[in-house]
Amino acid sequence: MPEGNHSTFTEEMKQGVYQAIHTRRDIRAQFKPDPIPGEVLVRILEAAHHAPSVGFMQPWNFIVIEDARMKEAVKGSFLKAHEASAELFDESKRAAYRSFKLEGIVESPVNLCVTCDRSRFGPVVIGRTTQREMDLYSSVCAIQNLWLAARSEGVGVGWVSILYPKDLREIFHLPPEVVPVAYLCLGYVTHFPERPELETAGWLPRLSLKEVLFSEEWGNRTGRLHEILERQKRNQPSKEEF
Amino acid sequence: MPEGNHSTFTEEMKQGVYQAIHTRRDIRAQFKPDPIPGEVLVRILEAAHHAPSVGFMQPWNFIVIEDARMKEAVKGSFLKAHEASAELFDESKRAAYRSFKLEGIVESPVNLCVTCDRSRFGPVVIGRTTQREMDLYSSVCAIQNLWLAARSEGVGVGWVSILYPKDLREIFHLPPEVVPVAYLCLGYVTHFPERPELETAGWLPRLSLKEVLFSEEWGNRTGRLHEILERQKRNQPSKEEF
Repeated sequence: MPEGNHSTFTEEMKQGVYQAIHTRRDIRAQFKPDPIPGEVLVRILEAAHHAPSVGFMQPWNFIVIEDARMKEAVKGSFLKAHEASAELFDESKRAAYRSFKLEGIVESPVNLCVTCDRSRFGPVVIGRTTQREMDLYSSVCAIQNLWLAARSEGVGVGWVSILYPKDLREIFHLPPEVVPVAYLCLGYVTHFPERPELETAGWLPRLSLKEVLFSEEWGNRTGRLHEILERQKRNQPSKEEF
Repeated sequence: MPEGNHSTFTEEMKQGVYQAIHTRRDIRAQFKPDPIPGEVLVRILEAAHHAPSVGFMQPWNFIVIEDARMKEAVKGSFLKAHEASAELFDESKRAAYRSFKLEGIVESPVNLCVTCDRSRFGPVVIGRTTQREMDLYSSVCAIQNLWLAARSEGVGVGWVSILYPKDLREIFHLPPEVVPVAYLCLGYVTHFPERPELETAGWLPRLSLKEVLFSEEWGNRTGRLHEILERQKRNQPSKEEF
């Protein structure tokens, strides 16, 4: 039996975890140009690298981008993708869509391309045999680790998904077996917005946990957790609810 | 401009975030039958529900499973998938594969199916227009939030991916537009293993961050972060390295 890790968490340490989760935001408009010290970047990249991965295959790579020309190339891909995307929205929503600031590629001091090497350690991977997408999901776990570690360091992160993966492949010379999973912008911020910007703008409401929680099977909103949520709602009538 | 959130993190709170990240494990063999209080489950589910989501679409649902019959049905799917998977490994590795304990479905007090409703809030979602898989990735971010919150509560989590998604659809009556993203086992543990079990068993080595980190483009291992990692390696020669 492997030696155990009996680390426990003080109340303040637990509070740190929950505060990182609840105050993390997708940052687009609040980047400051201040450089991020290398030691801070290494800490948050180590956090990413210690994510869970299917069959321990660690399929991720992290490409750190600080060169303005590389950022401009990615910004070009965004502008194309953003314009094509606007056409997909109903006319009634298109002006609102166009008004949103959806990326901070050039303003943020550091960009990061997170990839998934689907060939790492060979074709047969424990746990990827019946769900082929598990390796991509591992890279996403690394991104969320990075996002929370960054938040605790006061570093904002924005995930730019309005891009053509083909462009990222070309710009960063990715081999064919490597998938670009995320393009992130990192930097210190003027502030972390109190709420997600699309919520503040009235684009979509925050759902309540009650709405998305089921017991035993799809659609069943009964059980002990729903009773607790009902009680919490009665005791906090002013709490934001959908 | 939305009101800012200026929460800062004390050193101890930051330590909490990093400790959750570095001591989190995929738990299969260490589950204790002790029940998880509802209030704890609600806290870690709220953590999941506060993950980032593409276009703020919050595509996830959480099905909490405590009924032994439901667990047995999922265990049946695992056994089929595990046996079929074993055949895919080279004969030289098959015995080792079969020797691993890869799930704790029945022993863990709580199971959780995390899904992605690809139709939520309509067909056109901000940020999903050029990368269709972004909604699935949002559900994965929720899973990683949950995993870290659970770790800070002393609750172990194991992700069971050796399952047929078709079986999960049938067992939990998922609508066609809903994808089962993860099946998780949750419970208190005898201990959190010091290292990932596949590393301890010698199945695969832990890569170093240096190996997976590039500057500006694929394959470029130069730059200020590599210099820091080199320096750290020289100063800590005993540090685990691949």
